[in-house]
Amino acid sequence: MKVAVLGFGTVGVGVFEMLKNAEGMEQGTVLVRPGKNDTAFKRTSIEEIVNDPEIDAVAEVMGGIEPAFSYAAAALRAGKHFVTSNKALVAAKGIELSKIAYENNVGFLFSAACGGAVPYLHNLSIARESDEIISLSGILNGTTNYMLDSMQRLGLEYEDALRDAQRLGYAEADPTADVSGMDALRKIMLACAVSYDMLPAEGLLNEGIENISSQDVKHFMSKGYTCRLMVNGGKTENGGVYAYVEPVLFPEGAPECSVLQNFNMACYEGRNSGRISLMGQGAGRYPTASAVLRDLSGIASGRMYMLRKECRAVKAENDKYFHRYYIRLPEKMSACVAAESVETENGIARIITKSMSVLEMHETVKKIREDGGEVFFAAIGE
Amino acid sequence: MKVAVLGFGTVGVGVFEMLKNAEGMEQGTVLVRPGKNDTAFKRTSIEEIVNDPEIDAVAEVMGGIEPAFSYAAAALRAGKHFVTSNKALVAAKGIELSKIAYENNVGFLFSAACGGAVPYLHNLSIARESDEIISLSGILNGTTNYMLDSMQRLGLEYEDALRDAQRLGYAEADPTADVSGMDALRKIMLACAVSYDMLPAEGLLNEGIENISSQDVKHFMSKGYTCRLMVNGGKTENGGVYAYVEPVLFPEGAPECSVLQNFNMACYEGRNSGRISLMGQGAGRYPTASAVLRDLSGIASGRMYMLRKECRAVKAENDKYFHRYYIRLPEKMSACVAAESVETENGIARIITKSMSVLEMHETVKKIREDGGEVFFAAIGE
Repeated sequence: MKVAVLGFGTVGVGVFEMLKNAEGMEQGTVLVRPGKNDTAFKRTSIEEIVNDPEIDAVAEVMGGIEPAFSYAAAALRAGKHFVTSNKALVAAKGIELSKIAYENNVGFLFSAACGGAVPYLHNLSIARESDEIISLSGILNGTTNYMLDSMQRLGLEYEDALRDAQRLGYAEADPTADVSGMDALRKIMLACAVSYDMLPAEGLLNEGIENISSQDVKHFMSKGYTCRLMVNGGKTENGGVYAYVEPVLFPEGAPECSVLQNFNMACYEGRNSGRISLMGQGAGRYPTASAVLRDLSGIASGRMYMLRKECRAVKAENDKYFHRYYIRLPEKMSACVAAESVETENGIARIITKSMSVLEMHETVKKIREDGGEVFFAAIGE
Repeated sequence: MKVAVLGFGTVGVGVFEMLKNAEGMEQGTVLVRPGKNDTAFKRTSIEEIVNDPEIDAVAEVMGGIEPAFSYAAAALRAGKHFVTSNKALVAAKGIELSKIAYENNVGFLFSAACGGAVPYLHNLSIARESDEIISLSGILNGTTNYMLDSMQRLGLEYEDALRDAQRLGYAEADPTADVSGMDALRKIMLACAVSYDMLPAEGLLNEGIENISSQDVKHFMSKGYTCRLMVNGGKTENGGVYAYVEPVLFPEGAPECSVLQNFNMACYEGRNSGRISLMGQGAGRYPTASAVLRDLSGIASGRMYMLRKECRAVKAENDKYFHRYYIRLPEKMSACVAAESVETENGIARIITKSMSVLEMHETVKKIREDGGEVFFAAIGE
């Protein structure tokens, strides 16, 4: 299978290199920016790639929705299989691309968009064939895990943890998508789509780690807790799906506490299998490229799709799931939540709330912030 | 796909039940012992099953090499797909069965024989297509993990931990295969065969947990270590494979320490993917049955084999891997190993050895035991 690569950044270079040695694979051309075509295999025009009859498949690792979507659609319509590491693209346009792929009888896989080297989506698509997937959860953003781990184990301030993550190439120059939880949210959207044929596209909730302080970390460490940014998804009783992202505090010995540095841990609960967790590196050149290659091999072996034809966009239902929460907010606003316990110091209240729905918590915090209150919160993992 | 089940014990009942609701599956007949055929779907003759043209696939969950092997060969020759949870069968006869399966163009999968619900072998067979699997490791025996965890966290004696494991159905009435490490060894044999086309059938080393005492546990807990029974396998520099089982002591915070109760953790290190770990329940009715069903779905979707045609039996090479070891032995025999540190009490020596090869350690201990010495040892996980 001769594979063209769209994008020649960190992952693109890895994919191109790996194509050289992978079973049954062959290096095709690479799409680069105008002026960067300094070598014979590089092209600057997508038309040259999609019109090249020798190219069997296209691997897109550019990121962003456009022009990635137009390129993907053109490749699929030209009868090329399409694999991508681009979670923003699949979260926004996956159903549309899937439709084009089925119409043209070519493959469309996107393992690398969720979990990097961790084979999460593939295993979900296999598990659902013979088991019922009850829920999805996990640590799916390596950047924020690296930052939380550094703040906890090395005692770093938020800004220093972020700078380290950027220096090591885990965080982008603009880290908003990671620290806001948006990147993790897109991944749980994809996991729901693969598991349930429902892509939650509205009603989503995500709280990142932008508001965590080293004082928060010290406080919950003193209580024996470790903070992780968790994705959550699953089927609701009435046949819908829920999907949200928020920090969670885990007690000592929980498996999540042993997920260090930039590692990911992707879990599902099967009706029969029980809880299955997959751990590995969620980002980086070769880990991510290895997932792209796995998809290409999959297509070569006839595993063409992870989204089914019946997959549709739905609104997430996040009002049916309840947790107790840790919340740090201005003392004068502490009446906004029903407290199980309160500690106050210097005008700051640290509260463990009574059990409340995820939706209620996120909406309460939104209101407090609109009123000018600074807040960090995290669910209490049980 | 209509599936007959051979054996109607813990796992057989689970498989039969799950066939009712799984996508594209249908309950066939069930082979039971003479006199146990109290219901219409039960049969006591294998011929009735292999000669039934309505049966598409046979799931064997009886255990043991015979008559399982004869039944498997008959089913494959009759054009039935064959899946099994029987690690003893596949370790002893897998290559032969694989040959018959290819000759008859029918599927042969055995996910449930290694890791229970944990999709280890499947992911190895996928990963190797596009990446190089450098090494294999993991906790693949839930019974011994349950016992070690109980001894450590609940302070139980070995005999009490074993009794609890039996009461909960994790250990057989005769627990030898589990506690000797033989069950785990068979699993790493299968993982090597799937990853490397080499089934290590000779030169294998396995040390179980039969010789661990609550004093050993107290001793290494006081140093911050947790003991796990680990499988190890991989490719040697000269193109062979190594495969051995032995207890390992892990420092606090290692992912292995958070594998509690009867859970399994199956790992591989890919050249590009890095280390990938899969966790879940390694035994039990529904977890194991879910793996059998996953294989049946796999065959229905065209994923027919996890052993390749070129797979052959080889001798394991265990002399090239080095660890430091904890060894407890009679003080008067302590000169048998090169010590880095020694503690003695009441005629017992507890030694941290200098780095030595796995083969040398296992042979040294064999000699000490032949001379009447009682020994427990474990590698120091770094």
